[in-house]
Amino acid sequence: MKKTAILLIHCPDQTGLVAAVTDFLHRNNGNVISLDQHVDRQAGRFFMRVEWELEGFNIPAEKIDEYFGTLIGQKYQMEWQVHLSARKPRMAIFVSKMSHCLYDILQRCMSGEWEVEIPVIVSNHENLRYIAERFEIPFEIFPITKANKAEQEQREIELMHKLDIDFIVLARYMQILSDDFVAAFPNQVINIHHSFLPAFKGAKPYHSAFNRGVKVIGATSHYVTADLDEGPIIEQDVRRISHKDTIQDLIRIGKDLEKVVLARAIWLEIQHKILPYQNKTIVFD
Amino acid sequence: MKKTAILLIHCPDQTGLVAAVTDFLHRNNGNVISLDQHVDRQAGRFFMRVEWELEGFNIPAEKIDEYFGTLIGQKYQMEWQVHLSARKPRMAIFVSKMSHCLYDILQRCMSGEWEVEIPVIVSNHENLRYIAERFEIPFEIFPITKANKAEQEQREIELMHKLDIDFIVLARYMQILSDDFVAAFPNQVINIHHSFLPAFKGAKPYHSAFNRGVKVIGATSHYVTADLDEGPIIEQDVRRISHKDTIQDLIRIGKDLEKVVLARAIWLEIQHKILPYQNKTIVFD
Amino acid sequence: MKKTAILLIHCPDQTGLVAAVTDFLHRNNGNVISLDQHVDRQAGRFFMRVEWELEGFNIPAEKIDEYFGTLIGQKYQMEWQVHLSARKPRMAIFVSKMSHCLYDILQRCMSGEWEVEIPVIVSNHENLRYIAERFEIPFEIFPITKANKAEQEQREIELMHKLDIDFIVLARYMQILSDDFVAAFPNQVINIHHSFLPAFKGAKPYHSAFNRGVKVIGATSHYVTADLDEGPIIEQDVRRISHKDTIQDLIRIGKDLEKVVLARAIWLEIQHKILPYQNKTIVFD
Amino acid sequence: MKKTAILLIHCPDQTGLVAAVTDFLHRNNGNVISLDQHVDRQAGRFFMRVEWELEGFNIPAEKIDEYFGTLIGQKYQMEWQVHLSARKPRMAIFVSKMSHCLYDILQRCMSGEWEVEIPVIVSNHENLRYIAERFEIPFEIFPITKANKAEQEQREIELMHKLDIDFIVLARYMQILSDDFVAAFPNQVINIHHSFLPAFKGAKPYHSAFNRGVKVIGATSHYVTADLDEGPIIEQDVRRISHKDTIQDLIRIGKDLEKVVLARAIWLEIQHKILPYQNKTIVFD
Repeated sequence: MKKTAILLIHCPDQTGLVAAVTDFLHRNNGNVISLDQHVDRQAGRFFMRVEWELEGFNIPAEKIDEYFGTLIGQKYQMEWQVHLSARKPRMAIFVSKMSHCLYDILQRCMSGEWEVEIPVIVSNHENLRYIAERFEIPFEIFPITKANKAEQEQREIELMHKLDIDFIVLARYMQILSDDFVAAFPNQVINIHHSFLPAFKGAKPYHSAFNRGVKVIGATSHYVTADLDEGPIIEQDVRRISHKDTIQDLIRIGKDLEKVVLARAIWLEIQHKILPYQNKTIVFD
Repeated sequence: MKKTAILLIHCPDQTGLVAAVTDFLHRNNGNVISLDQHVDRQAGRFFMRVEWELEGFNIPAEKIDEYFGTLIGQKYQMEWQVHLSARKPRMAIFVSKMSHCLYDILQRCMSGEWEVEIPVIVSNHENLRYIAERFEIPFEIFPITKANKAEQEQREIELMHKLDIDFIVLARYMQILSDDFVAAFPNQVINIHHSFLPAFKGAKPYHSAFNRGVKVIGATSHYVTADLDEGPIIEQDVRRISHKDTIQDLIRIGKDLEKVVLARAIWLEIQHKILPYQNKTIVFD
Repeated sequence: MKKTAILLIHCPDQTGLVAAVTDFLHRNNGNVISLDQHVDRQAGRFFMRVEWELEGFNIPAEKIDEYFGTLIGQKYQMEWQVHLSARKPRMAIFVSKMSHCLYDILQRCMSGEWEVEIPVIVSNHENLRYIAERFEIPFEIFPITKANKAEQEQREIELMHKLDIDFIVLARYMQILSDDFVAAFPNQVINIHHSFLPAFKGAKPYHSAFNRGVKVIGATSHYVTADLDEGPIIEQDVRRISHKDTIQDLIRIGKDLEKVVLARAIWLEIQHKILPYQNKTIVFD
Repeated sequence: MKKTAILLIHCPDQTGLVAAVTDFLHRNNGNVISLDQHVDRQAGRFFMRVEWELEGFNIPAEKIDEYFGTLIGQKYQMEWQVHLSARKPRMAIFVSKMSHCLYDILQRCMSGEWEVEIPVIVSNHENLRYIAERFEIPFEIFPITKANKAEQEQREIELMHKLDIDFIVLARYMQILSDDFVAAFPNQVINIHHSFLPAFKGAKPYHSAFNRGVKVIGATSHYVTADLDEGPIIEQDVRRISHKDTIQDLIRIGKDLEKVVLARAIWLEIQHKILPYQNKTIVFD
C-alpha cells in the first residue's frame, strides 16, 4: 500500500475550484489516485475529496495542511481536512448488552479487513466484558443513572481525549447521549438505528414495524446530533419481511442489517469518504 | 388453464381448522392446487387460502359458497370468500395527470399478462384522455371542487356499482377520497404512495426524502382507509439513491418503483392472494 | 418455547394428501402451528412441512415416526422425517484460513440467536485455532495432501459419526470434498460459494466477476453434491458494485454477502425448513 | 435547463490529466457542473466525464471538439467525444413480438421523462405495428430469413445512417445480429438479456434458471459485440424468487426487471454517462 494523503473540502461554489485544487497538486508533483466532487446547487456549496500519492510530492506530509490553507483554502473560504493514510484512525466502541455489532466490528479489525485502532470499549453494563477480554481490548464501565449521567459523561469525554479518539461508534449502545456529550464530538459519533429512518424513530422500532405491518424493515447509520435519530444519514439498507415474521423474527433479521449498515458507515469513515454538511452527508463511495 | 375455485378464510384460531377445510375438499373430490395458512398468535386468528380444481368437484361452482358456509364456515365462525378463476376481476382505474402507472397497467392487460377487465378509467382532469382513447377504454371525467366533491363522489360510486367493479386502483390519483367513498369500498381501493410508509406520509414525499437526506427511497401500495396513508400495506420496495440525486432524479427513479409496486399489488389482488385483517395484510404470494 | 414436532414429507402427488396428514394430527389432538405445502406439477411431487405442539398430543414423541409411517406414510409412498424441537441440531464447522464466516456463526450461537450445538471445528490449517480456543470449542486439524486425502477424510467421517453430527457447514473451507465424503452425508453438507451461481463456478469467482465487468456480485449457499458448485441452492443474495471497485473491494464486499447467505442457510437448516429434491430445494421460509 | 457541453475522455494514465482538462475549461470561463474521473490501475487508463455550462464559455459550441483536440487531447493521446445537451439523441428501437419494453420506452419518451428522438421502430414481425401506430412512430418491417439476412441487415444499416441514428436499442429483439451489423455500430447497440449474465447465456434463460433452482433471477443490459451475450455490461438487477414460482412466473417477474434494467441503460446513454473500454463499462451515474 502506497502512502497517500486525502483532502476533504467544502466551500461556497464558484468557477475554477477543481482547477485550483488539481493545479496545486499537479504543480507539486502529486499523482492523483481518486477525485470526487459534488455541487449542491440548492445550497450553492462545493464538495470535494481528492487522494494522491505522497511519494515524490514536494510538500512534506506534515506541512500539507498549512501550505494548502495558505495557497488555496483561505482564498476560496474553504473548510478542509487533511488525512494521511499512514495514520490509523482511533475508534472507541460504546456497547450495552447486545453483542452482534461488537463481534462483527472486532472480527473485521482482527482479520485485517479494516486498518483501525480500538483503544477502548466503553459500556454501561458488565455483560460484554468477556468479549473485550477475548479480544484483549480495554473495557471501561461507566454505569449511567439519572443522578450521575452528567458526571459519567464528563469522565467519558476525558477518556476519549486522553486516548486521542478520532470517532466513536455506538454499537447498539442503549443510552441517549446528552447534548453536551454530542457537542464535544461533532460528526464524530456514529450510531446504528434499527429502522429505515425517518420511519420508526425512538424506542422499539421493530415492535412499531410489526404493528404497522410493513413489508420491509431497515437499518440506518448516522452521525449523532442533539436531535435524537435526526442526524445526517450515512447509510441505509432494508430487507423484505412477510406476515409470517414475528417480532422475534424482525429482531433477528434486523441484526444482520444493523451489522452490515454500521460496518459500511465505519468503513466509509475510516476511508475519509464522508462529508457531512448541515443535516446530510456527501458520501464519495 | 384449468378452472379453479379459491377460498379465502379467516376465523378465530382453534385445533382442526386445516383438517376441516381439506377434508371438505377431499370428500367432494377437489384436487388441491395450493394451500397456504397462517396463524396470528397475538390476535388468535387463523387465515387460509386454498385453491382447487373444479373439474370433477362434486359441488357446482355456484353452490360452493352456500355448501361451504353450511357445512364448515358457520361452525367455526369463519369469514370467507369464494372466487372462481373463470370470472375476470373488474378493475376501475383512477388517474390525474401522470401517465407512468396507467401505461404500465394497460400494457400488462393488453399483452395478456393479467386476466382482468377495465370497464372504465376515471379522472378529475382531461390530461390522460388520449391514452384511454388509444387503448379504447371508456374515460369518465369527474372534476372535483370543494363544493361538488360529495356529489361527484356519489356519482362515481354509482358508476362503480353500475359497472360491477370489484376493485379500484388509484394510479397516482391526486385527490383524497372522502370517508364516505372509502366506506363504500372497504379493502377494495388500492393506492400507490410514493414513499416507504410510514416515512414521508402526506404530500410531496420525494421533497421530504431529499431534505432528510435518506439513502434509499421507496414506494408503498396499500388499501385505502379513512386514515390517510395508514391503510393495510400490500407491498413495498426501495431503491438506493445518493447525494448526487436531485429531487427531479428522485421523482424519476421513484416512478419506476411506483409502477412495479402498484403492479405487484394488483397482481396479488387479481390472484386473490391478499387477506386484509385489521390494519395489516396476509399476502400468500 | 413450547415443545413441538416437525414433519417433513415428500411423495408422489395425489388428491387428499393434506387432508390425510392434517386429519392424522387432528385425531390425535395435535395443534398445528404452521403448515406449508407445495406441489411440483412438472415432477408430480408433493412436499409438506407441518409443525405442531407436542403438549396434549396423543402419540409419544419417540413413537411419532413409527405411528406416522404405519398409518399414513407407507400408504402414500411418502419419504418423511420427524424432528423434535427439544433436540438441538449438532453442527460441525469446517474452515481453512478465513475467519469472517466462522466468527459470524459463533457469535450467533453464543448470543443465543441459534439453538445449535457445535461439537467440533475442523480445519486443514492451524490458522484459526485461536478462535476456537477463544470460544472454547474443540478444534481438530486434518491436514490434507494428495497422498493422504482419502485417509484423512475417512478419519473425518468417523469423527462426524462419533460426535453424532447432523450437518456440516463449510465456512469457506478451501478443500474439495471427495465423492466418498459427500456420499457419506447426502444433503447434510452446506457450502457457501462466493458468486451468484451458476455464474463464476470454480476458483477465484471475484477475479472472474471483476474481469467480466458485472454490476452485481453475489453469494450462494447450497448443499454439496459430487458435482462441484452444482448442488441444490438454498439461498442467494447479491450486492451492487461499480467500476470503482477493485478486486480487493469485491472480496471485502463479498465477505458480507457470504456471512449472511451462509447464516440464512444454517438458520433454515436448524428450523428444518429445507426439503431438497433432486437438484433443487423447497424452502418453507 | 441551461445548455451544457459534455466531454467524455479516456487516455493512458499520467500525472496532471484532471488539472489539464479543468484548467482548459477554467481559462475559457466554463462553469463545471459535474466532474467524474476514474483510473483503472490494472489497465493504466484514465477516464473522465465533465459537464459544463455553455453560457459564457469562450469557445463556440461547434468548435469545442477542434479546440480541445488541438490544445489538450492530442497532447495526452486522448480519445474523446463532445456532446451538446441541446441535441436530442436519436434512438432506433428494434422489436419482435413482446411489447413490455417497447411500451415502457415509449411512455418515458411521450411523458417527457427522456429527451430523445425515435425516428423509427424496426421489427422482423408485424405484431407490434399497432403500438407504433398508436404512438405515431414509423414502423419498418425487415423480415429475416437465413437466405435474406445479409441483405436485410444491409438495408437496416442504410436506414440507420439515413435517419442519423445515434444508438440502437434491442427491446427484446429476437434475432441475432451478424458481425457485420455489429461492426457498423460499435458500442452503439444496447441489448437487454433476460438473465444476470454471465449466468444463463443464450436462449431460454428463464427455463435454465428454473431448472437450476436459483433463488434470484436477473436481467442485464449491455452493448452488443460480435460475441453473443459477452458485450460490456451497462446495468444489472435481480429479484428474489422461490420454489413456488413456475417458469411462467419467472417470465412475468423477469419482464419487470427487463423493462427497468433496459430503461436505466438508455437513460445513462442519453446522459452520455457510459464509457465503454475493452469489455467493461465505466458508468458515471
